[in-house]
Amino acid sequence: MKVALLGYGVVGSAVAKALIENQEIIKARCGEEIKPVIALARSAKKDALIPIVYDVEEILKREDIDVYVELMGGVGFAYELVHRLLKEGKKVVSANKAMLAYHRYEFENLAGELAFEASVAGGIPIIKALKEGLAANQILSIKGILNGTSNYILSAMSQKGANFEATLKKAQELGYAEANPSFDISGEDAAHKLLILASLAYGIKALPEDILCEGISAINALDMEFAKEFDYTIKLLGIAKMQDFRVELRVHPTLIPKDTMIAKVNGVMNAVSIEGDLLGESLYYGAGAGGKATASAVVANLMEFARGHHFEPMLGFKQNLPFVLLEKEEIFTKYYLRLKVEDKIGVLSKITHLMSECGISVDSFLQKPKINEPYSTLFFTTHKSYEKSIRALLKALEKQEFIKAKPFMMRIEE
Amino acid sequence: MKVALLGYGVVGSAVAKALIENQEIIKARCGEEIKPVIALARSAKKDALIPIVYDVEEILKREDIDVYVELMGGVGFAYELVHRLLKEGKKVVSANKAMLAYHRYEFENLAGELAFEASVAGGIPIIKALKEGLAANQILSIKGILNGTSNYILSAMSQKGANFEATLKKAQELGYAEANPSFDISGEDAAHKLLILASLAYGIKALPEDILCEGISAINALDMEFAKEFDYTIKLLGIAKMQDFRVELRVHPTLIPKDTMIAKVNGVMNAVSIEGDLLGESLYYGAGAGGKATASAVVANLMEFARGHHFEPMLGFKQNLPFVLLEKEEIFTKYYLRLKVEDKIGVLSKITHLMSECGISVDSFLQKPKINEPYSTLFFTTHKSYEKSIRALLKALEKQEFIKAKPFMMRIEE
Repeated sequence: MKVALLGYGVVGSAVAKALIENQEIIKARCGEEIKPVIALARSAKKDALIPIVYDVEEILKREDIDVYVELMGGVGFAYELVHRLLKEGKKVVSANKAMLAYHRYEFENLAGELAFEASVAGGIPIIKALKEGLAANQILSIKGILNGTSNYILSAMSQKGANFEATLKKAQELGYAEANPSFDISGEDAAHKLLILASLAYGIKALPEDILCEGISAINALDMEFAKEFDYTIKLLGIAKMQDFRVELRVHPTLIPKDTMIAKVNGVMNAVSIEGDLLGESLYYGAGAGGKATASAVVANLMEFARGHHFEPMLGFKQNLPFVLLEKEEIFTKYYLRLKVEDKIGVLSKITHLMSECGISVDSFLQKPKINEPYSTLFFTTHKSYEKSIRALLKALEKQEFIKAKPFMMRIEE
Repeated sequence: MKVALLGYGVVGSAVAKALIENQEIIKARCGEEIKPVIALARSAKKDALIPIVYDVEEILKREDIDVYVELMGGVGFAYELVHRLLKEGKKVVSANKAMLAYHRYEFENLAGELAFEASVAGGIPIIKALKEGLAANQILSIKGILNGTSNYILSAMSQKGANFEATLKKAQELGYAEANPSFDISGEDAAHKLLILASLAYGIKALPEDILCEGISAINALDMEFAKEFDYTIKLLGIAKMQDFRVELRVHPTLIPKDTMIAKVNGVMNAVSIEGDLLGESLYYGAGAGGKATASAVVANLMEFARGHHFEPMLGFKQNLPFVLLEKEEIFTKYYLRLKVEDKIGVLSKITHLMSECGISVDSFLQKPKINEPYSTLFFTTHKSYEKSIRALLKALEKQEFIKAKPFMMRIEE
C-alpha cells in the first residue's frame, strides 16, 4: 500500500518514521506493507525520510497512490484537496479537526472514504471507541479534556496557585503553548473536536459558532482557591449531553468534583469520559498532541484501510432519531459566581434579591474577611438554573454601582 | 442477523434486553437488524424475553442462526461447544476468559471467527484498542486492574483502614464479592485476562499456571498505612512488560505511586494502562463486570459481524518476532518487605547482612516505636532486584528465630 503525505511537519515526518521503523509489526498486523512514498512540503526538509515535492499536482498526477494523508491543517486549501480526493473515490486519512468542524457533512455522499482518528484527542483511539466499541449504547453524555495547552495551564495554576498570565508565559517558554495561544485558550480548538464527537454520537450538524464556547483566560487564583476549598477541580471541558433527543453542546471552564476520574487528568494530557446507557461511564486517557502520538492514530487508520475496513462516508450514524441542538439559553446546570463588591450595608441583600428575581437559588456562599483590599469578593454556587436566568442575573448585576469588577461565572458539572 | 444465546443468566438476559431495547440505534449503526431468537438455559427463566431451550442440540440443529454467543463460562463444555462451532465455520462471540486463557490458540486455524471483547475488562473496548487503535505501536507494557472484586476490597481497605477479612465480608454482603471469592482474590481471574491481552500484544502462548500469580489476602492494615506514608497505592495489577523481546507476565498486589492515573481507579471499576512506543501511555477505564456493561461489549462484537468486520482467527498477531516469556525468577523490580521481629540487639544488622548476601540493597526503611505489642514490625523497600534474590532472602529470613511471622513481600512498580 503506497501512501502520500500531504504535509511534512512534526506529524508528517513522525508518520513517515513510524511507518519505516515499525514496518515489520505493521505488516504482520495488517497483512500488508504500508510504504510512505512521497510527501508534500512547503519548504525544503533536511534529512527527509522520503522524497519531498512542493507542488501538490506532482502527487495528484501519480497513479500508484493508495491512500492520501492530509496533515496540512486549515479549512481552505486542505478542504478543497480532501473534497477533490474523496470525489474521485480516493481513500484519505486526515487529522484536520478545523476542516471537519466546518465541512464534515459535505464529505458524506462522496465516493471516497475518510478516516480521521487523529482529529480528536491525538493518539487516543476515541473515534473508534465511540463508533465501534460503544456502538450498542445510546450515548448519554461525553465530557472531554480536549486541549492539552489549556489543561497544562489549569493544572499548573491549581498546583502552584499562580495566576493565568504568569502560567501562560511559563507554558510558552516550555513549548506547551504557542506564541499565539488564542485558538487553544479560547476553547475553539476543543469546540472543533467536540463537534466531531457529537456528530458520531448524535449526527448533530452544528458549526463551531453555533455552540456555547468560553475560554479560560478570566480564571484567577481566587477561583482555584475556592475550587480547592469546595473539593472541585477546574477543567476546560467539551460537553455533549443528551436528554429526550435534545443535545447540549458546550465548551467552557468547569468546576467538577475532584474525585472524578476526569478531574485527575493533569498536564498536557487529554481524556474523554463517555456515559452510555449500557456501559455507564468509561474513560479514555492519553496524549492529545505531538508527532508520535498523532502518528499512532494516523498509522492505525492506514492499517485499517490495509485490512479492508470500510469507513462509512458519513460522520453521523444514519440513526434517524430526532436529535436537535438545545438552544444555549436552555442549558440547565449549576453555576459558580465570583463578585467583587463594595463592602457596605445592603449589598448581600440586594444580590440575593436579584437572584430570587431571576429564579436562581443559592447552594453555597463564601465571603472571607478582607485583608488590605478595598473591596470584598463574594463566591456563590447555585442550584440548577437556566443559562438564560444566569445571563439575566449577570446583566442586572453589572448595572449595580456596588459591583466593582465584571462578575465572573463558571458552570459546575456533577 | 439471527443470534442464539448459549447461556441466559445475568449477561445473557442483558444481551437480549440490549438487542431489543436499542434495536433502532443498533440497526442504524450497523446496517442490519440483530435479533436474539433463542437461548440455552439450565433451568426455567421467568419473564424471558426470547424462547428458552434446555438442550443445546435444539439450537445446533437450527440452520438459521448467524452468530452464537457463548455465555456459559467454564472450560469444559463451553470449550467443546465453541470448538465445534468454529470448526464448522460458524461465527462466535464469547465472554469466556477462562476458556481463552487455556484454549485460545486451539481456535487459531479453525474455519470460523471468534470475537471476545467482553472477555477482558467487561464493557471497556480494550481488545479493540489493543488490536486496532494501537496497532501501529510496539507495546512496551500493559498494566491492568482487571478484577473488580479485588479492587473494591483494596480501595475499601485503603479508605477505611479496615483489615482484609472484615472488608471481604462487607464486600460479600454488598454483592461485590461472591460467596466463594477465591477465584477473584487469588489473582487467577486477572491472570486469565492478562494472558488474553499478552497474546494480542506478543503472541505469548503461556497458560495460567506458567505465570507469576499472587492474591491479595495477605495484605493488612499496616501495609495500607505504609503505602499512604510513602505516597503509594496498593492495587492488584496484571502486568505485561516487554524488553528485548523478553516478556514478563505477572499478577500480584503492587505498590504504585499514588499520583499515576491507574492508582486513582477505585471501587469495582477496571482500568488498563498501555504503553506504546508511539503513543506513550494511554489508559482505558470503565465497568469490568455486570450484565449491562458486558452486554455492551457482546453487542458491539455482534454489530461488527453485521458490518462484515473480519476477525482474525488468531489471538496473537502473526508478527514473527521472537517474543519469549521471561522466567519468573528473572523478574527484576523493586520490592517491599514487612517483617515482624523480636526487638533485640543485632536483629537489624542480621537482616541487612542477609540482604547484602542476596545482592539486595535497601531503598527505604521504616521502624516505628512499638506500642503495647510484643514484637516490632520493620518495613523495607529495595532497589531493583531479581525475583530469585528476593526469594532467597525470604527463605533465609524464615529460618531466623527472631522472625515472628511469615515475612510479607509485595512488588513495587514505578
